Amino acid sequence: MADERFMRMAIAKAREGIGKGQSPFGACIVSAGEVLACSHNLVWSGSDITAHAEVSAIRDACARLSTIDLSGSVIYSTCEPCPMCFAACHWARISKIIFGSCIEDAQGCGFSELTIPNQRMKQLGNSPVEVEGDFMRGNCLELFREWTARADRRAY
Amino acid sequence: MADERFMRMAIAKAREGIGKGQSPFGACIVSAGEVLACSHNLVWSGSDITAHAEVSAIRDACARLSTIDLSGSVIYSTCEPCPMCFAACHWARISKIIFGSCIEDAQGCGFSELTIPNQRMKQLGNSPVEVEGDFMRGNCLELFREWTARADRRAY
Repeated sequence: MADERFMRMAIAKAREGIGKGQSPFGACIVSAGEVLACSHNLVWSGSDITAHAEVSAIRDACARLSTIDLSGSVIYSTCEPCPMCFAACHWARISKIIFGSCIEDAQGCGFSELTIPNQRMKQLGNSPVEVEGDFMRGNCLELFREWTARADRRAY
Repeated sequence: MADERFMRMAIAKAREGIGKGQSPFGACIVSAGEVLACSHNLVWSGSDITAHAEVSAIRDACARLSTIDLSGSVIYSTCEPCPMCFAACHWARISKIIFGSCIEDAQGCGFSELTIPNQRMKQLGNSPVEVEGDFMRGNCLELFREWTARADRRAY
């Protein structure tokens, strides 16, 4: 399954971030079978509170293609995008969001999430982006466990 | 009035952006009377769909102070922050958002806004950020008029 392969890339990238003291989130953007960008969360590395995995991947994909329009692409995110990242996906015209764990899981680890699910954001904002959750959730939850076991973890 | 002075700075920055072919939005972040960052929208200049004025100002302020925590600061935005920017303010722990025109005004100019007002985001996400709208709305609406009159305008 292609979806599984791309989610595994997002998970591997998140794991790489955990190893570098970053937060346990990864995202991979794919268009027509080609990976445009794959990033882990970079909030701590750059003191940039907006550098979530999804926002970072969107920036990378836009820079790579010199475009602000990622129509037709799919973003695989290890955790449900927060409202900032959901809205960034909407602005970038990403066609589909596929995520593993959910916002409440991140909140349970101490992240001060705005707990508004993607489906609610989509409905309230009338966004055309497709949303599929609970994809490889078990593998994605494992990232939180690995991160929680580390002494250098810092939520925000 | 200090609030008026800082909003005028955000408006002046937005106007500078319009002159450079950018979108008609500006934001200014202030802490204890000191301007930490003031930015106009940079979406087109860097092919970065996430580079709204508020996100850009938050990145600048965080980089300047080497922090991800802007507690106690106020953001003055010429237009109501979109849900991406509202959530970015929440993550950065900005204490108060003061804005001029509203999301519907931007939508009316062709921007594909998720039309979820800040107050609704705050309520649904249970965010502590204070929100004050309709501040110098007339001056802020003028920015849309100036931008609309330009042949090089590009909404997204």
